Amino acid sequence: MNSQKSNVTRLPAAVLKKSCIDVFTAVGVPAADAEVIAETLVLTDMRGIHSHGVIRSARYIDCIKAGGIKPAAELQILNDSPCAVRTSAAGGLGIPAASKAVEIAMARAERHGVAVVTVNHSDHYGAAGIYAMRCADRGLVGMSMSNTCPLVAPAGGAKATIGNNPFSYAAPGGKYRAILFDICMSVVASGKLIIAAAEGRKIPKDWILDAEGNPTDDPNEIWHDAIMLPFAAHKGYGFAVMVELLSAVLAGSGITEDVKSWNLVPGRDADTGHCFIVIDPEFFGGLDEFKKRTDLLIDRLVATPPAAGVDRVRYPGEIEFGREADAEKNGVPLPDSSVGELRRAAEMTGVKLDF
Amino acid sequence: MNSQKSNVTRLPAAVLKKSCIDVFTAVGVPAADAEVIAETLVLTDMRGIHSHGVIRSARYIDCIKAGGIKPAAELQILNDSPCAVRTSAAGGLGIPAASKAVEIAMARAERHGVAVVTVNHSDHYGAAGIYAMRCADRGLVGMSMSNTCPLVAPAGGAKATIGNNPFSYAAPGGKYRAILFDICMSVVASGKLIIAAAEGRKIPKDWILDAEGNPTDDPNEIWHDAIMLPFAAHKGYGFAVMVELLSAVLAGSGITEDVKSWNLVPGRDADTGHCFIVIDPEFFGGLDEFKKRTDLLIDRLVATPPAAGVDRVRYPGEIEFGREADAEKNGVPLPDSSVGELRRAAEMTGVKLDF
Repeated sequence: MNSQKSNVTRLPAAVLKKSCIDVFTAVGVPAADAEVIAETLVLTDMRGIHSHGVIRSARYIDCIKAGGIKPAAELQILNDSPCAVRTSAAGGLGIPAASKAVEIAMARAERHGVAVVTVNHSDHYGAAGIYAMRCADRGLVGMSMSNTCPLVAPAGGAKATIGNNPFSYAAPGGKYRAILFDICMSVVASGKLIIAAAEGRKIPKDWILDAEGNPTDDPNEIWHDAIMLPFAAHKGYGFAVMVELLSAVLAGSGITEDVKSWNLVPGRDADTGHCFIVIDPEFFGGLDEFKKRTDLLIDRLVATPPAAGVDRVRYPGEIEFGREADAEKNGVPLPDSSVGELRRAAEMTGVKLDF
Repeated sequence: MNSQKSNVTRLPAAVLKKSCIDVFTAVGVPAADAEVIAETLVLTDMRGIHSHGVIRSARYIDCIKAGGIKPAAELQILNDSPCAVRTSAAGGLGIPAASKAVEIAMARAERHGVAVVTVNHSDHYGAAGIYAMRCADRGLVGMSMSNTCPLVAPAGGAKATIGNNPFSYAAPGGKYRAILFDICMSVVASGKLIIAAAEGRKIPKDWILDAEGNPTDDPNEIWHDAIMLPFAAHKGYGFAVMVELLSAVLAGSGITEDVKSWNLVPGRDADTGHCFIVIDPEFFGGLDEFKKRTDLLIDRLVATPPAAGVDRVRYPGEIEFGREADAEKNGVPLPDSSVGELRRAAEMTGVKLDF
């Protein structure tokens, strides 16, 4: 372990989790909540989504220290029907709130076949796919989505007036673990722009607009309030609106500009919203049958002859599951930026790290 | 009415509906089913989606005559829980089956807050958005989706092994009628290729592959088994898989290649599947509040400053609602190809048309 390889450090998941638990409990997060945050952030890094892993720990703590997030808030039930539940995170951390909400959704779906649970007055909930995969690992079909502060221009627009709203679904397989899909609404994630900038490359003109709303092929605009464009124009725009309808309009959380950026204004209540839709295949012909049929679907997809220059066709989630298995075996590979933010979280909270 | 303008004829909706009812009842479709088919096809043309309007009438009748669709099949309930229902169209027409299924989903959602209804052993169900909009017009949030025979290559693939699976959602507004989003999974619909071919234009190389799986900029390949590419590569692919999971894996209908093309083999049972997810805002803070908040979302989206060359930003569904209102006032504008197929349906069934 601990071997350094091109700016990546491998650390045991247990060590990382303990570090996360320590920094969050140090700022007043209840032990059970700190544990679920640790589990979530580390698993996200294990799946290779480093932008949403332990790198976020320091910023969550910035928000707690600035008063924008209440560390010990408890999830409140606002409307409670057997399979339709509206909750509030009461200004608390997004990850524990979302974890409790999806737990309710799974339990209700197992009893009634389907359940929808919304969360309002929440904050950044990490990687959307974490919650969808909890469903799949429990034999359920899960959808997970959240709105964000405005980051993306509507199709035809020249200003960021809607969030880069993440959407994920997952479904269980048999010989294959699951199908997992987890995306945001922009053409590319900001990480790709940062890489292009570092390599001095131009980018296609349909990726971003500059801060004034003009087309640009310069990835460095990411450092100057660039506006993200939605994937496939009106299609990405329409999916962003769907997430806003379910996570904000239905949930009762901030709509578009009423969601505050936890990155830019850590002391402000973000009022982010989430929505979870869970379906139990036992009510539709049985889980065993469902898993077999998911396997058949995957078998057929991966058997597709590959296009020129492609080794083989993959199913959604295959890459993430491969990384997770590798991290379990060889330790969690962390970029320097992730290690740095975890160290900053430790410094802020007076925690001594075991690495 | 009846004025001809650049290959478009305007006909009164009532005349068109009567024509559709007559041709379908003539081949043994029960009166109530023929009426819902007529209503659906004509409304689709009113919204400007001519590819899924009355132009389909003759082909549905081809399938009935060839034995691939049973004209008087009744929707069967396979699994029945209060908010999770699995049904079979029993080899019948897609539109009446989907209409009955979404009606069940709406009634159950109104009682329980949310409902999922699947349909298997069905056929082409027309425009996905028809069913989502029935939900929105009734004060509900609706999702509608269906699989199709393989038409699209997975991301990285060189063969069409998954359907161009339509997905739609709609949600009610107050001063605005609704938000309506209705898409398929390919970069472009085949109609755009046909127009490019007619105009002698090349197309971008990421729209389609030729029948052998090679990139092409020639839109004429649409006449030679071109393979559609998914929008935004792995994003469109992932949404196509989501629709396949819910409409086929969960519903118990044909998966990918087990769905037969009703266009190519009208005498074969298509075994198409659909899925409807309906949510009642009354269980999440109330419909009035939901409508006000949808209005606020739309107000903010359309207030986005437009990009260069764009007159203004639109909300999803705005264009379709505008066309529908125009068609109500001025008659339904029908391309020659639509009129031609309706005439062919009339000839096949011995029906005299009133236009």
